[in-house]
Amino acid sequence: MNKIILIGAGNVATNVGLGLKQAGYEIVGCYSRSLESTHLLAKNLNCILVNDLKQLPLHDLLLVSVPDAAIADVIAQLPKTSNIAYTSGTISLDELPKTHKIGVFYPLQTFTKNKQIELKSVPFFVESRDENLEKELLTLAKHIGLRAEITSSEQRKQLHIAAIFVNNFTNHLAYLAKQHLEKHQLCWENLLPLLAETFAKINNENPKEIQTGPARRNDLNVLEKHVSELSGNEKEIYKAITNSILQTYHA
Amino acid sequence: MNKIILIGAGNVATNVGLGLKQAGYEIVGCYSRSLESTHLLAKNLNCILVNDLKQLPLHDLLLVSVPDAAIADVIAQLPKTSNIAYTSGTISLDELPKTHKIGVFYPLQTFTKNKQIELKSVPFFVESRDENLEKELLTLAKHIGLRAEITSSEQRKQLHIAAIFVNNFTNHLAYLAKQHLEKHQLCWENLLPLLAETFAKINNENPKEIQTGPARRNDLNVLEKHVSELSGNEKEIYKAITNSILQTYHA
Repeated sequence: MNKIILIGAGNVATNVGLGLKQAGYEIVGCYSRSLESTHLLAKNLNCILVNDLKQLPLHDLLLVSVPDAAIADVIAQLPKTSNIAYTSGTISLDELPKTHKIGVFYPLQTFTKNKQIELKSVPFFVESRDENLEKELLTLAKHIGLRAEITSSEQRKQLHIAAIFVNNFTNHLAYLAKQHLEKHQLCWENLLPLLAETFAKINNENPKEIQTGPARRNDLNVLEKHVSELSGNEKEIYKAITNSILQTYHA
Repeated sequence: MNKIILIGAGNVATNVGLGLKQAGYEIVGCYSRSLESTHLLAKNLNCILVNDLKQLPLHDLLLVSVPDAAIADVIAQLPKTSNIAYTSGTISLDELPKTHKIGVFYPLQTFTKNKQIELKSVPFFVESRDENLEKELLTLAKHIGLRAEITSSEQRKQLHIAAIFVNNFTNHLAYLAKQHLEKHQLCWENLLPLLAETFAKINNENPKEIQTGPARRNDLNVLEKHVSELSGNEKEIYKAITNSILQTYHA
């Protein structure tokens, strides 16, 4: 499984494509609906820009990294004889055409286009109904990633939910904190050392054991004061997480 | 303001005491209700163990780092002629005896007893009704910390709320994610690379601009599926933060 064609030219395709190339795989071509992105990626990977999904260069694997809503449509256009893998955390194999040889090749990471992520630090989750394809994807993932395991679509969904808590929700809390400070003429940079230490502790210790703060201390007086300072979504989130902490430690 | 006595021997007292000593200040003594903690701290700081708040060695500053609920009581026992500062983010100057010369010396960081934090990376917030004391605390904080500014009790409360979002709540989200993975026989270590990248991005970019995920994409189909997988506090938190993201980007 050496010759790979990328379908899609977004953050995931770009990062995985560069990682595959650096690991010695041959990216023979790339295709996406956005001509501009495809041009850029083809240039970066020094590969052919594919114009037509019906005229693909010789390949061992078609790696599909397009938005979730487009995956089924894109796969339906691909040759039934090709090995196909897609990189989504949410789309289940059951949702895709059974006519094709399809596998999951899911890197659990958040990718940004203009910042290359070391794939060597990324865990991969693979799955396929085709035993050979599953085995080949597992080998590929083990070669380029931190580790790789076979994971069912059901487990992948649960991984994705946990990833949303750690990434999407944490990022939104940071946004709310920044907004809150700015509303009170305070500077976001003041929180960055605390943010760094928070992550260092979560990374090295058990989050349950290192919880601190008024809810952990069952300091209802402070909690009540804070709730009265907040409104709207900030207030709802403060209350929901505080209730959860109180129930975790003081139920 | 060179000779300092620490009142309290918890995480904050230990870290600030060690930082002050390393910056060349003289810790002349320490006192706390817990004899074991005080012994350990006195040994670490090579200072006198104070047994009685009525018999304090010669000092320029009494630095009070005790639980919020005990601050007013402890301060009431201290000499009215002494310079006193306390390290809490939540207690307002108004809540404390006006009979004493009191200032705030608040390091915005999360401290762990067995892990020393570099005070040079910590921003300090100071306040006092006594102009001289305020000036001296500002100088002290600038000397040992990352930066220092005079901040009202009202602003300090808002800082503390923002800190709760970034530290306490982020840590609890990590706990929920870990629980969720374990419930589904998945390994928490799989999320650590994502956690590291999440932190790096929040630290370097504007959280509002780097938000990703199904709520950011307005992918109601995925959101609905996830909500149906969750229950209890996890579900309430998922819904509250998701609503907030939807309203931030799609209102």
